[in-house]
Amino acid sequence: MKILVTGAAGMIGRKFCDALVKRGKIGSRPVVRLTMADTIKPAAPTGAPFEACTDSADISDPGVAESLVADRPEIIYHLAAVVSGEAEADFDKGYRVNLTGTQRLFEAVRRAGHQPRVVFASSIAVFGTPFPEKIPEDYALTPLTSYGTQKAIGEFLLADFSRRGFFNGIGIRFPTICVRPGKPNKAASGFFSNIIREPLKGKPAVLPVGEEVRHWFASPRAAVEFLFHAGALDLGQIGSGRTLNMPGLSATVREMIVSLRNVAGAECAKLIRREPDPAIQKIVDGWPGRLDASRAEALGFRAETSFEEIVRQHIEDESAG
Amino acid sequence: MKILVTGAAGMIGRKFCDALVKRGKIGSRPVVRLTMADTIKPAAPTGAPFEACTDSADISDPGVAESLVADRPEIIYHLAAVVSGEAEADFDKGYRVNLTGTQRLFEAVRRAGHQPRVVFASSIAVFGTPFPEKIPEDYALTPLTSYGTQKAIGEFLLADFSRRGFFNGIGIRFPTICVRPGKPNKAASGFFSNIIREPLKGKPAVLPVGEEVRHWFASPRAAVEFLFHAGALDLGQIGSGRTLNMPGLSATVREMIVSLRNVAGAECAKLIRREPDPAIQKIVDGWPGRLDASRAEALGFRAETSFEEIVRQHIEDESAG
Repeated sequence: MKILVTGAAGMIGRKFCDALVKRGKIGSRPVVRLTMADTIKPAAPTGAPFEACTDSADISDPGVAESLVADRPEIIYHLAAVVSGEAEADFDKGYRVNLTGTQRLFEAVRRAGHQPRVVFASSIAVFGTPFPEKIPEDYALTPLTSYGTQKAIGEFLLADFSRRGFFNGIGIRFPTICVRPGKPNKAASGFFSNIIREPLKGKPAVLPVGEEVRHWFASPRAAVEFLFHAGALDLGQIGSGRTLNMPGLSATVREMIVSLRNVAGAECAKLIRREPDPAIQKIVDGWPGRLDASRAEALGFRAETSFEEIVRQHIEDESAG
Repeated sequence: MKILVTGAAGMIGRKFCDALVKRGKIGSRPVVRLTMADTIKPAAPTGAPFEACTDSADISDPGVAESLVADRPEIIYHLAAVVSGEAEADFDKGYRVNLTGTQRLFEAVRRAGHQPRVVFASSIAVFGTPFPEKIPEDYALTPLTSYGTQKAIGEFLLADFSRRGFFNGIGIRFPTICVRPGKPNKAASGFFSNIIREPLKGKPAVLPVGEEVRHWFASPRAAVEFLFHAGALDLGQIGSGRTLNMPGLSATVREMIVSLRNVAGAECAKLIRREPDPAIQKIVDGWPGRLDASRAEALGFRAETSFEEIVRQHIEDESAG
């Protein structure tokens, strides 16, 4: 089976490709070739039990999508995206990559004519306030950012191209991924990871919002498993909408801090410095705290059930690197 | 005030431009120039109290949208679209005109930088089954056709471009317009108009569905008034979604036939021939019967409250032509 991953140099893309190299298959089907595409050329994986190629490519450039699907990959993971903050700051780039790029990829798949599976990474950013306490499966999409708008449009294109039989699509709405490895970034959501990751390294971290803030999380490991599962799942029961809320863990910042303390000790948790930032608080107040993911759960998608588990996984996965 | 109308050669576009020529203003603001654009060059209006130009132009062609907004029109009515049946039959054309064309127009407005009002014609085709008895204002968009998908995407673009301040958008979800003048067409919805219009001309008409079918209608006159009202309305209360269900009349085919009989007599109504067509019945069963339009009503949009009124209007408006 040939696999194409766009956005393969991103955090989830890299972790997914690493896992693919280790497992060598998706479901029971062995991988024979993996193409990793990104605007930044992804690092080539070592020791893969299959052919692996990396490609420095922007899917929004004319002709690029066609060349990426020329070997007729059986599964296309479309993870490439300009992230939320950047899509808001650079309107043109966000629409070019997240809308035009997605449209060009889907069109190229249609023209290739081989009807592969397409796994599309969507986001809880498709939802906008006001929210009920738990966002239902069939809640109307009311994105309040350009990124959320572009992801919502991607979901509609995925559904229509699938309905027309051009490919077999499944969209997965990722929760906020936490704990993100790496350095602190300036994304409004960055503090969710910073307040766990930095104290674990003995460094201080800033908490800009109140501890009562509730949000919807899944670990990098859960995100990788979503992608494996979406690649192997029988799509007969997916429904015409094609996109599913992924399971996650609803946790408050207070619960996150308690988890950190329980796992790493009180001194570690004391490295979190409260510096309320009304601008960030306002943004975060517009984010969902809990989603109904029962359709995805019934289809076998799984996420963590405790934040302590997420903290422990992060320590296991990142302490070596 | 300068006005641009795309799709000005279509049925609603023509009627709206004719009414504009008669009234000379939108709300209290006089029109100084009207640009009527369509792929088929619209007939130039006669006797307009303002400058009127017609333009044979496809907004999906590069550069066309820029030239249409070059005179910085204060209100842009974006009515141009490939209709439902054609967008389903010709996938490329539907996406090119309904998605790329809309995107190019919105982008051209953004680059012109003068922040006009944009009135976007959407459709109840953005909704897909299963439906509640009355579709609520905030019902999730689940289009089941390419046309509905393209209109839903247009609504999202309208909301995001408005949120970013590039223009002041209002989207209006038209009910099925009935009675459409002209000749019977092969659209699946054509019979709704055919069974009224043709008998009134003394000609037979085919009813391919059961009389219990319920659907959501507004007259051509109501549609024209929606456009005038959307051009003059204070948009301060429109909400972030920007698109409203338009008011309409929920009627069954049986109620339509009774109305025809009451207005034009029993002999006229006998010209309707029952020829059940399971394929059309199946399509029509996927259409909404009733929508909640209370937000639009609170903002002053009005439609007919009896089907007899719709029949009488049709006789008044079309008997001369």
